[in-house]
Amino acid sequence: MLKTLTIQTPSQGLHEFTHEVRDVVRSADLQEGLCTLFIQHTSASLTIQENADPSARRDLENWINRHVPENDPHYTHTMEGPDDMPSHIKAAITSTTLSIPIIDGDLALGTWQGIFLWEHRTSPKSRRVVVHIGA
Amino acid sequence: MLKTLTIQTPSQGLHEFTHEVRDVVRSADLQEGLCTLFIQHTSASLTIQENADPSARRDLENWINRHVPENDPHYTHTMEGPDDMPSHIKAAITSTTLSIPIIDGDLALGTWQGIFLWEHRTSPKSRRVVVHIGA
Amino acid sequence: MLKTLTIQTPSQGLHEFTHEVRDVVRSADLQEGLCTLFIQHTSASLTIQENADPSARRDLENWINRHVPENDPHYTHTMEGPDDMPSHIKAAITSTTLSIPIIDGDLALGTWQGIFLWEHRTSPKSRRVVVHIGA
Repeated sequence: MLKTLTIQTPSQGLHEFTHEVRDVVRSADLQEGLCTLFIQHTSASLTIQENADPSARRDLENWINRHVPENDPHYTHTMEGPDDMPSHIKAAITSTTLSIPIIDGDLALGTWQGIFLWEHRTSPKSRRVVVHIGA
Repeated sequence: MLKTLTIQTPSQGLHEFTHEVRDVVRSADLQEGLCTLFIQHTSASLTIQENADPSARRDLENWINRHVPENDPHYTHTMEGPDDMPSHIKAAITSTTLSIPIIDGDLALGTWQGIFLWEHRTSPKSRRVVVHIGA
Repeated sequence: MLKTLTIQTPSQGLHEFTHEVRDVVRSADLQEGLCTLFIQHTSASLTIQENADPSARRDLENWINRHVPENDPHYTHTMEGPDDMPSHIKAAITSTTLSIPIIDGDLALGTWQGIFLWEHRTSPKSRRVVVHIGA
């Protein structure tokens, strides 16, 4: 089973969409299996992170912005704006794809885990994530 | 087929558990397929690395500790100890999930590849890794 | 279905092999499914990146070489040459495995996405990537 989700991201940062993925998994009506997510972009990525305390996500975003800064004089790929080349680098060191087991008809996430779309561009974007559910 | 492994980690660093995964794959009795691992935590991660020379793993651990240090004054998420926020960042730039093909009833790892749980906290932990095996 | 691709890499950097993966997917003759790639090496990795402008790939390669340099005096694993330890670190912070959905019998890549083998060693290598295709 395949379904494409469209996620609107208001700005740079981590945007949780666990609920949208969970809805797809429940509608598949499969007791055991594997749910794979794939983001169809190279300037945004996927990550599983703590969904309890927002300070962890802010520190994560700050860390990556310090290590992959805008306006680095080494960049040559600069035509699409100062946030474009950092976006590709951030996508390369995080994840384009994630696979989460399905147990008892639901995502087998740990207690504090949430699924996040990590938007690396600064302006609002519409992002497509393909969800594959298999046995 | 699904099985949850519990891995005890004595301390920060790379802990090989190839053998435990191989046992699950062999018990599945499947000639060809895919073995997917998912760690149910956000302060530990998974990686496939060289299992021959322990100096490579030490250098890897040292590199990540220099780039994601404890007690960085930028961190605000500090209530759970100095090793907590670095753990989330390390998990984000490594892997929560891995998929390894099964060929001839066994994991199709390269000659020097081992499967490691990368513990990012400093104290001993009990970690859960869900193993999914599909055709 | 499983197939092992052999990719010759002339030098360090990003080498696109979308075409070779697409050929395997088309020969599988499956309308919907999941294509998983696994690289059987610890000094090269996989990534999905923009395949339009080569300047993005050059900047990406330059960024990783600045953050994971050769001849770092902290390295102790140095017997296999100055490019060996950086290769393991680069592999750990990028991807060993990727899963791409199959829609309408083809890889469901976004408009600008290509599949790349990221060679981290400096000399020419022959690399094996196992392709698994499942429903």
